[in-house]
Amino acid sequence: MRRKLVVAATLVGLATVGMAGPAWAFDRPAEPDTQYILDNIFVFFAAVLVLFMQAGFALVEAGLTRAKSVANIMMKNLMDMSAGVLAFAAVGFSIAYGPEGNSFFGLGGWFLDPAGFDESSLTLATNFLFQAAFAATAATIVSGAMAERTKFKAYFLYSFAITAFIYPVVVRWMWGGGWLSQLEVPFGDFAGSTIVHSVGGWAALMGALILGPRLGKYGADGKPRAIPGHSIPFVVLGVFILFIGWFGFNPGSELAADLAVGDIAVTTLIAAATGAVAATLTIWVRSGYPDVGMAANGMLAGLVSITAGCGALDNWGAMWAGLIGGVIVVLSVQLLERRRVDDPVGAVSVHGVCGAWGTLAVGLFATKADGFVATEDAGLFYGGGLGQLGTQAIGVLAVFLFVTIASGLVFLLIRATVGLRVSEEEEIAGLDVLEHGAPGYGPDVVPTMDTAVRGAPRVPAKV
Amino acid sequence: MRRKLVVAATLVGLATVGMAGPAWAFDRPAEPDTQYILDNIFVFFAAVLVLFMQAGFALVEAGLTRAKSVANIMMKNLMDMSAGVLAFAAVGFSIAYGPEGNSFFGLGGWFLDPAGFDESSLTLATNFLFQAAFAATAATIVSGAMAERTKFKAYFLYSFAITAFIYPVVVRWMWGGGWLSQLEVPFGDFAGSTIVHSVGGWAALMGALILGPRLGKYGADGKPRAIPGHSIPFVVLGVFILFIGWFGFNPGSELAADLAVGDIAVTTLIAAATGAVAATLTIWVRSGYPDVGMAANGMLAGLVSITAGCGALDNWGAMWAGLIGGVIVVLSVQLLERRRVDDPVGAVSVHGVCGAWGTLAVGLFATKADGFVATEDAGLFYGGGLGQLGTQAIGVLAVFLFVTIASGLVFLLIRATVGLRVSEEEEIAGLDVLEHGAPGYGPDVVPTMDTAVRGAPRVPAKV
Amino acid sequence: MRRKLVVAATLVGLATVGMAGPAWAFDRPAEPDTQYILDNIFVFFAAVLVLFMQAGFALVEAGLTRAKSVANIMMKNLMDMSAGVLAFAAVGFSIAYGPEGNSFFGLGGWFLDPAGFDESSLTLATNFLFQAAFAATAATIVSGAMAERTKFKAYFLYSFAITAFIYPVVVRWMWGGGWLSQLEVPFGDFAGSTIVHSVGGWAALMGALILGPRLGKYGADGKPRAIPGHSIPFVVLGVFILFIGWFGFNPGSELAADLAVGDIAVTTLIAAATGAVAATLTIWVRSGYPDVGMAANGMLAGLVSITAGCGALDNWGAMWAGLIGGVIVVLSVQLLERRRVDDPVGAVSVHGVCGAWGTLAVGLFATKADGFVATEDAGLFYGGGLGQLGTQAIGVLAVFLFVTIASGLVFLLIRATVGLRVSEEEEIAGLDVLEHGAPGYGPDVVPTMDTAVRGAPRVPAKV
Repeated sequence: MRRKLVVAATLVGLATVGMAGPAWAFDRPAEPDTQYILDNIFVFFAAVLVLFMQAGFALVEAGLTRAKSVANIMMKNLMDMSAGVLAFAAVGFSIAYGPEGNSFFGLGGWFLDPAGFDESSLTLATNFLFQAAFAATAATIVSGAMAERTKFKAYFLYSFAITAFIYPVVVRWMWGGGWLSQLEVPFGDFAGSTIVHSVGGWAALMGALILGPRLGKYGADGKPRAIPGHSIPFVVLGVFILFIGWFGFNPGSELAADLAVGDIAVTTLIAAATGAVAATLTIWVRSGYPDVGMAANGMLAGLVSITAGCGALDNWGAMWAGLIGGVIVVLSVQLLERRRVDDPVGAVSVHGVCGAWGTLAVGLFATKADGFVATEDAGLFYGGGLGQLGTQAIGVLAVFLFVTIASGLVFLLIRATVGLRVSEEEEIAGLDVLEHGAPGYGPDVVPTMDTAVRGAPRVPAKV
Repeated sequence: MRRKLVVAATLVGLATVGMAGPAWAFDRPAEPDTQYILDNIFVFFAAVLVLFMQAGFALVEAGLTRAKSVANIMMKNLMDMSAGVLAFAAVGFSIAYGPEGNSFFGLGGWFLDPAGFDESSLTLATNFLFQAAFAATAATIVSGAMAERTKFKAYFLYSFAITAFIYPVVVRWMWGGGWLSQLEVPFGDFAGSTIVHSVGGWAALMGALILGPRLGKYGADGKPRAIPGHSIPFVVLGVFILFIGWFGFNPGSELAADLAVGDIAVTTLIAAATGAVAATLTIWVRSGYPDVGMAANGMLAGLVSITAGCGALDNWGAMWAGLIGGVIVVLSVQLLERRRVDDPVGAVSVHGVCGAWGTLAVGLFATKADGFVATEDAGLFYGGGLGQLGTQAIGVLAVFLFVTIASGLVFLLIRATVGLRVSEEEEIAGLDVLEHGAPGYGPDVVPTMDTAVRGAPRVPAKV
Repeated sequence: MRRKLVVAATLVGLATVGMAGPAWAFDRPAEPDTQYILDNIFVFFAAVLVLFMQAGFALVEAGLTRAKSVANIMMKNLMDMSAGVLAFAAVGFSIAYGPEGNSFFGLGGWFLDPAGFDESSLTLATNFLFQAAFAATAATIVSGAMAERTKFKAYFLYSFAITAFIYPVVVRWMWGGGWLSQLEVPFGDFAGSTIVHSVGGWAALMGALILGPRLGKYGADGKPRAIPGHSIPFVVLGVFILFIGWFGFNPGSELAADLAVGDIAVTTLIAAATGAVAATLTIWVRSGYPDVGMAANGMLAGLVSITAGCGALDNWGAMWAGLIGGVIVVLSVQLLERRRVDDPVGAVSVHGVCGAWGTLAVGLFATKADGFVATEDAGLFYGGGLGQLGTQAIGVLAVFLFVTIASGLVFLLIRATVGLRVSEEEEIAGLDVLEHGAPGYGPDVVPTMDTAVRGAPRVPAKV
């Protein structure tokens, strides 16, 4: 009954806002030329590619974890794309890009009210579409590190906090024209190694730390034990989807149809390739096997590592960014595991650590004046001195501090109220049955799934 | 032997048509300007997105049903994309858009003969590509509701009837310039809530009714029992593919590269998001669990609900269309189940009921003169009176009547001839082995599949 | 230890090349017009579609083989997209398109050095992106025919040889302006039925022949036995991904945004459709069942069969190309199986045999002067005489001879050094555990996977 009241109140509230809400009246060119239209069409298709990344994140996370929580994982990604997008439309977009506000926090343009938005280079709609796709990305990264043990309600709350507040604030600092873009040597993060990926990665780190490891992850001797994921095909299919999505993510960040698009695509391709190869060789040397999950994460590591510098690095720089990213990700995954940070999908290493690395790589390898990098050959290795590298370090550090503190507070607050972690009984049974009422696979394909919930209260079939 | 004769005769017949057939000579601009080319390129990529939806439909249907008929389901979607496309190319496209004929039924331009087709805004090829992708969509919706118990031959026949005749007739009425587009207040169905989705949905309803429920769906007490699908990951991956495909479906229906594309994309995104959230909350309240399959169907419901109005509704209208669609789909699924309509994937509710709702929503919320809606603020809630709403109701009703009658006749005819439903023995064994000669999963991953066919004649390994 | 030295040496070597390597300075239009930009944007998105095909190849191969080698298959496709792309960037692209060299073998432009490349129609970056996506395709075809029994190291080596040398040489002959394009009647292979697909197909044939059949494929009586693949849903999802990827592959090969793009898309669609239908009917007649795997391969066969002629054939020609391709693929698969060529996925038939057929079809059905076909109605059946057909046969034969000899030498060399085939013990256990250190599915979904490795040395959990 109380539930129905909550829903009814929500609907009435929305209706009130809707009636009182702004009408959408746009300030776009009355007779746009073909180039303006092409810019919008280009960013539109790039946004579709980025939206598709959500499927990739879902599959990677699902594949690297156990079958008993697979439905929960798919659900979280559905919610990032729905509840998350709505939160971003209502408030996040304004905090990031609002026409009012200051260098740290945007205001105005709530609920996509167009008044005051500049539409001279893209329409508000095109711009929002692209940015909303990015916002959904930041949220989904976190869920990977917290997989298999987080309450669905808790997920809902932290995901809202990240999409509506934490991520938008960081965007404001940089792409919203804030202080990071106003430094004497502007911060160079073209498509979001720091702004998007490390935001997700550092929040993931805090989430994994505060949650603690999954049951059984560490033996009585304190040593980590492998908890194998349930589907490598899902992992690699997911990586391929993310890979092609990145060709919307990076080239699309040009926010215009021009010739830099192809250049950015090639640096992206090269870094993805070197990341995968480097991670494969590194794990081969360290474990004796070319591990497939690690190779997949290596491709993602390469992609994250070039995201900041895809416009400012040339192909050799891209190779180095990806190659070192691919080595780093393996070392980071193994280090975190030893330090009792249980991150089932490697999200902290791929997005946080390689996000930081990719941002610093701009300070080392930047040669082109593009992607917020103002001068040619700004990279340390190209004679640019420490100026760009210093700015990059400032940005990395500032975002790290803000995100760990803000997300840490959010997680602690959730833990103190609705609770963050499921019960031991539920964790053993898997999240699907007890959080969502049904397993992710039918009894005809995974008959043991039923066994998993034995002892737990069977779900009443109300539907 | 008789089979070989049939095949040989088909080939000879095709050869004859080919020799006597029209040469393709086009009437397009000799020196097209860049905007014309951009229009064609835009619709081309939009068509590719819509073609990809077939994979999404296949996965959603496969995931929501049992593993023992999974190959049959994948096969049906392959056939929609092949036999269906050929039927549409041969006759369906002409019935829909043929340069001759009348307001109810097009003629001329058979087998893509270009004579008489207007190529002033798009080339015939681009236009056909986009429309063919739509036609494949209408057919696949039906197969979901009839899953797990329909003969493959019967599927082949009804699918042909829908793609070649029933769907094209409805298209003629509206997009082909027919009577629905000529009403005093023209019918507003921009991308096909009624024209595409409800056609599929109402045919699905008739199919499910005439077939009857699956064995075991209703207990001795007459109460419905859950028959769980075999893979939630497939369902959600399929929904994500459909979701991005819809960005070809709705914005592509603009049939031109212009600034409305971004606006349409944003209304589409918002309705998808509110649909998913609303369905999640509704099922959570009603069953106690945030059910993942229902959330997935909620996103589809939101998308279907905005398909008619994506051009004419503003973002608030899109929110309402999606939100109410998300509530409706849950109630409709539960109602139909109680009424002994066994629709394994919820196709009738998602595409039929929400298709009707989305069409009516144009009469309630339309604010923009776009997407066949001729006047601003035509929606009832924006002071437009009952004119638009009345037209919408006429269109919904006319299509409902035509499709239920036409498809009902088709199904009854098939039942009376080759038969519509498989034998009880085959239904228990699953369609894969007895209809297609091999199970959909190997014995190494689903060993129980063999058990399923015990008692049934084993398939001889002729290949 | 030795391994670490190898890795260190590689890194030092790369660093040296990088420092001494060329800077990228481009020779593109300073003020490009919108059409030039649109051309580049179009090819960029087409390239993304082709890159996505790698996921399709991975799924088709994985689905048609057994679960115990699924991770190995996904890994190979990851490596095609990473190691393969790097090899192509370093040397392959230069051999194919290098500004120096001759009619058989290109030189110059190593490591994407832009000096000398013509950027008048596309930028080097856009061009490379598209060609690199093609190169990855050629390599992946081979791995399908050699699945379930090839050492990962051997795969690495032959894949490198094909991507860096064999495929680029053939490209040089034609698209690089070599001798096949200079014949009196130029060779007509618009998008690569021969240049891409048959290169993969013939190398696949040699690989399968030299490897020999999988254990258990032929009984004591010498008759073939079916080894069922593990997932038809993967196969069909993969085919749908390849299908939409082909709309980048074929229309993208126009290398410009113009009105031919739509025409090419329609011939591609029609041939895919007729291929699927024809293969379905053929196997239905021959085995008594509409086999789903064969229908899926039929769609691919139709696509391969139109790849050469998608620009020069009209819609009727496309129908014939696809229809005959769909019949041929079934007969070829059955013939090769009887002849003890164990090709688990049908790669030789789909890509080699249908690649040859599609190339010859240009000589039979070409009507349009497009796609390297210089005169209208060049096809034999349209009064063009034997000129075009003769050239087509020369090209098919020349590529067959070069590829079989070159790839045969590569495979024999590998067999004589690191070895080509895994041990019998490993083949029985599956490649995943012994080559990559972990199974492709978790014990929670495929518990029997553990059994498969019993008797084999367990993998030490070093990570």
